[in-house]
Amino acid sequence: MSKILVFQTDFTYAEGAVASMYGVVKSVDRNLEIIDATHQIPQYDIYSASYRLYQYVPFWPADTVFVSVVDPGVGTSRKACVALLSNGSYVVTPDNGTLSHLDKYFGIKEVRQIDETVNRLRNKDTEEVAVFHGRDLFGYCAARLAAGIISYEEVGPKYDLSEIRRLPFEEPVVYEDSIEGMIEIMDPNFGNLWTNIPKKMFEDFGFKYGDKVKTVITYKGEEVFNQELPYFKSFSYAQDHSLMIYHNELNKIALAEVVGNMARNYNLGYGTDYKVVFMR
Amino acid sequence: MSKILVFQTDFTYAEGAVASMYGVVKSVDRNLEIIDATHQIPQYDIYSASYRLYQYVPFWPADTVFVSVVDPGVGTSRKACVALLSNGSYVVTPDNGTLSHLDKYFGIKEVRQIDETVNRLRNKDTEEVAVFHGRDLFGYCAARLAAGIISYEEVGPKYDLSEIRRLPFEEPVVYEDSIEGMIEIMDPNFGNLWTNIPKKMFEDFGFKYGDKVKTVITYKGEEVFNQELPYFKSFSYAQDHSLMIYHNELNKIALAEVVGNMARNYNLGYGTDYKVVFMR
Amino acid sequence: MSKILVFQTDFTYAEGAVASMYGVVKSVDRNLEIIDATHQIPQYDIYSASYRLYQYVPFWPADTVFVSVVDPGVGTSRKACVALLSNGSYVVTPDNGTLSHLDKYFGIKEVRQIDETVNRLRNKDTEEVAVFHGRDLFGYCAARLAAGIISYEEVGPKYDLSEIRRLPFEEPVVYEDSIEGMIEIMDPNFGNLWTNIPKKMFEDFGFKYGDKVKTVITYKGEEVFNQELPYFKSFSYAQDHSLMIYHNELNKIALAEVVGNMARNYNLGYGTDYKVVFMR
Repeated sequence: MSKILVFQTDFTYAEGAVASMYGVVKSVDRNLEIIDATHQIPQYDIYSASYRLYQYVPFWPADTVFVSVVDPGVGTSRKACVALLSNGSYVVTPDNGTLSHLDKYFGIKEVRQIDETVNRLRNKDTEEVAVFHGRDLFGYCAARLAAGIISYEEVGPKYDLSEIRRLPFEEPVVYEDSIEGMIEIMDPNFGNLWTNIPKKMFEDFGFKYGDKVKTVITYKGEEVFNQELPYFKSFSYAQDHSLMIYHNELNKIALAEVVGNMARNYNLGYGTDYKVVFMR
Repeated sequence: MSKILVFQTDFTYAEGAVASMYGVVKSVDRNLEIIDATHQIPQYDIYSASYRLYQYVPFWPADTVFVSVVDPGVGTSRKACVALLSNGSYVVTPDNGTLSHLDKYFGIKEVRQIDETVNRLRNKDTEEVAVFHGRDLFGYCAARLAAGIISYEEVGPKYDLSEIRRLPFEEPVVYEDSIEGMIEIMDPNFGNLWTNIPKKMFEDFGFKYGDKVKTVITYKGEEVFNQELPYFKSFSYAQDHSLMIYHNELNKIALAEVVGNMARNYNLGYGTDYKVVFMR
Repeated sequence: MSKILVFQTDFTYAEGAVASMYGVVKSVDRNLEIIDATHQIPQYDIYSASYRLYQYVPFWPADTVFVSVVDPGVGTSRKACVALLSNGSYVVTPDNGTLSHLDKYFGIKEVRQIDETVNRLRNKDTEEVAVFHGRDLFGYCAARLAAGIISYEEVGPKYDLSEIRRLPFEEPVVYEDSIEGMIEIMDPNFGNLWTNIPKKMFEDFGFKYGDKVKTVITYKGEEVFNQELPYFKSFSYAQDHSLMIYHNELNKIALAEVVGNMARNYNLGYGTDYKVVFMR
């Protein structure tokens, strides 16, 4: 049986790129099933591409083939690769940092560089194109792998896991009177801010539902937010438009404005520049 | 044969929520077919969720399973339910008003509350999560129902149809010299304004193609629009950028600026605050 | 085996139009596979609809059925048609200029007008609707064709290829010291500007990778851009935020701001008003 192909890119649906990439997939094997994870990764944002894979890959069947194309370095020497994950699924992607979160939180067993002499689409329309690896390389190679036309070994030569390009991470730290972490991503719809602090760490520290927790956020070391916020199991325990702490769908501590948008209304963002401290 | 799953949410594709929800569906049964109705319901807008179901459900096969997740009350005591519609299809949704239009215009035969002890995804990643019923409850339960793993009876206990949460509606009224209705929704792309007045009521009153009809719109009782507009069968009978009355794809009376955007250009909206009167 | 249906429209996913159109398709034959090409063609923009088909149709299997609904003239005398392309695939579309690029660059073998007495959805909900041919005519007819319920001949009467509505085109011209073309489309995500000048013409003229090329853009005859730009094989040869010339995924000459947005930052657009001249 063919494997499912799940795609994420920063192409959007505003033009024909996704459609031509999917056409190549269906030309390899028209029985392949294609699912959109998202085509709205922020442009050139490898960090978000990496985070989103971590957010959804664990919920898919073990034989799924994921394709991620956020590729500002298309045409450079960055490797094109297929990673074999700890559960047996695959990620086809430029090796540009996109594998960072899966590597850290999920597990990668093996990685191979795509052999472009075999697994790149070459015809009169594509031979000389150097700017669309989503269509000509990643989509094409992933389709061949998912369809069973090539084995994982036939993707190309294996390379050492230590060579995978990794983005820098910061770990949360537990002090005597506080926990310090970072805002690792934003929910762009609802404006919730997701920290890198696990629920378990937060609760082992002593915080429990109903507690009021002094919460300080700094941006590049400067305080930009300082309030006491309640910790609740879900949004319904708080008033609309009030702020609260909760644990998100990945069981990490997060901040929200209920039926509002905290990131926008408090002008907050994410990344290693945004630190958050919860104090006893 | 598996049933088709049709999803609508307010999640957008800007992050990984849809992808993780669909992963859960495919993990239940990888042969299930997933279709996007839309993930762009305006945030927290239960009224729009209800309206959109009414707009498209009648056009689908009778054994379709619809999933709607616009759920500002996630984690509260609002019921999670599966409604059996008059034609045999199902809607899996929070019972928060989302069923209002289908109840009124299409027919609901039976409703059952989802038994979370059986039909909720529980594993180490999801057990403690209280904020993502789209993935852990609605998506999971719908997949089990569509795949035939559970029967409709096994969804959970039946409750009385009278207990379904219904949004308030207003009915159009025919007076001697006018018809009064409300603007019940907007076409957000083209800016057309859709009233709740059926074509038949409008024509039985005496209006016919080619007529000029005095049209008054009020917002909270105050007049915000007053013009004589022609009633045409379709847009091509009018000049570009002129205003006109027509009957929309659901055979209700609507207002449009041809190749324009009436809602934006005339600063008009929808809801019970927006009344429209057509006068002889 | 059923054919794949590939849809493009200007409906967006902001409301229920796509979902009701797809419901009609699945009601014709629930085994039909539906793929989104895009629902974000700019509103009423027939030129973009035509261009996008040209961008992706060549990459799909030869028995695909494409449906394009950008239809500002719905309800007028513009024909509804199904074109048979040179490779055996079909395009179901209003004959309003949408076939222009495929006609010029890909080849159309035959065209038939849809017989609305047979191939239009007619029931109590749709009989009197004059404004939604995507659902009631194009989607319905395409589904019947893809499912094999009707043959191509049964779509309706053939008409002469010369009657196809064609948009005006301009051809690039090679002078002694320059090549003049137009900006024929924009990449709306990355702001790249795509000209109508083939890579081969550009290189036959003498330009090669690494050359600096004097580049002038005029809008309605007035100069709006004048710089010397390098010609590179891909973006990685240039500095971030610098401008460059490259050949795009269709092997035509294009302009880009690397990891930037040239169209927005230099206030440039596309269409026959935007001429570009490359000088020796």
